[in-house]
Amino acid sequence: MRLYDYAASGNCYKARLLLALLHRAYDRVPVDLFAGDTMTDAYAALNPVRETPVLELDDGTVITQSPAVLWFLAEGTPFLPGSPLERAQVVQWLAFEQERVMGGIGGARFRLITGRATAEDPLIAGRLATAREALDVLAAHLSGRSWLVGDRPSIADVAVFAYASRAGDIELEPTAWPPVAAWLDRVRALPGFVDDFEPYPPNARAGAGTSIYG
Amino acid sequence: MRLYDYAASGNCYKARLLLALLHRAYDRVPVDLFAGDTMTDAYAALNPVRETPVLELDDGTVITQSPAVLWFLAEGTPFLPGSPLERAQVVQWLAFEQERVMGGIGGARFRLITGRATAEDPLIAGRLATAREALDVLAAHLSGRSWLVGDRPSIADVAVFAYASRAGDIELEPTAWPPVAAWLDRVRALPGFVDDFEPYPPNARAGAGTSIYG
Repeated sequence: MRLYDYAASGNCYKARLLLALLHRAYDRVPVDLFAGDTMTDAYAALNPVRETPVLELDDGTVITQSPAVLWFLAEGTPFLPGSPLERAQVVQWLAFEQERVMGGIGGARFRLITGRATAEDPLIAGRLATAREALDVLAAHLSGRSWLVGDRPSIADVAVFAYASRAGDIELEPTAWPPVAAWLDRVRALPGFVDDFEPYPPNARAGAGTSIYG
Repeated sequence: MRLYDYAASGNCYKARLLLALLHRAYDRVPVDLFAGDTMTDAYAALNPVRETPVLELDDGTVITQSPAVLWFLAEGTPFLPGSPLERAQVVQWLAFEQERVMGGIGGARFRLITGRATAEDPLIAGRLATAREALDVLAAHLSGRSWLVGDRPSIADVAVFAYASRAGDIELEPTAWPPVAAWLDRVRALPGFVDDFEPYPPNARAGAGTSIYG
């Protein structure tokens, strides 16, 4: 199988992290978002939404959207629980991650680090508030629990870890949320763990590249 | 079971629609978002994110986030396919819905209808562009297909239907995307279908109520 991947995307890192934890082999196809790689007709045929990651199976089946890539890879492994309630709880955290962790931490981080906005921008202030509230919710949930769902790590942890691990980049140090900091360390201690979530390259700076992100 | 519900929320309508299609009985607990009902300590204990819908089972188990509510209710029914690939595809459309249909159509619609922004606002222009692209993606996918995943209706259709059915409210008439309009009609023809997605009440107008939505 093949992962269409951007090294500085937290959504792609989620997939790479799970593949590493599952010890799965795959081909990594680098996609340079800011060189226009997703703006071609060929890429639109692969993923009409023009995003990364995309997982392409050997039979040509394509899976887009990072929560779906995680779900597909985890099916039949310990990273996806078996009970209907725990599966619904995994869906719940995947949705929370999209809305609040990626939307809050990831959204603010991208715009601040690449010079698209400043912390005074009302949109960024709103995202930073969402990010803080997300860390509050995570800290409350992880007080007295080791993992987000049930008593073992799942794709809920993998998904939330990606951007939560980078909260410090927007001056939200996880040490201010001790249960979150302890949980981040538990994820880092999992067998096979990798952190290859790269910083944004120079062409991601506002005005430097060509992309759908402006 | 009990659904904490706001009649004018598309996310709550998704849950009500699935419950109707499944012919399931439940107690409906009205939550007035703009009268401050989600800002109490009691509501935060139910859902720390202070959103609707919330599904509370008879044993006290609580499920939040509309995709998770749908997933839990659909487990073991024809509205959640059985194969790992089709299940991943359902997750894919649930994520697409959150990001592009709710974020685009739902987000623009709420702010425009309740007087929080005008179509010239850059944030709204971005959301309208996202909404149009989402309808383009849906139309392309539904050309020659009856349902979003596999060959029967699933919670992917239920989730996307809610806000897609209201695109006309922001002057994106589904008739401009014929495969989408035909699919909306197929959903409306399902046994048990209800449309009780209410307009925003007067207290949802900007400045009229008390809520986390400002």
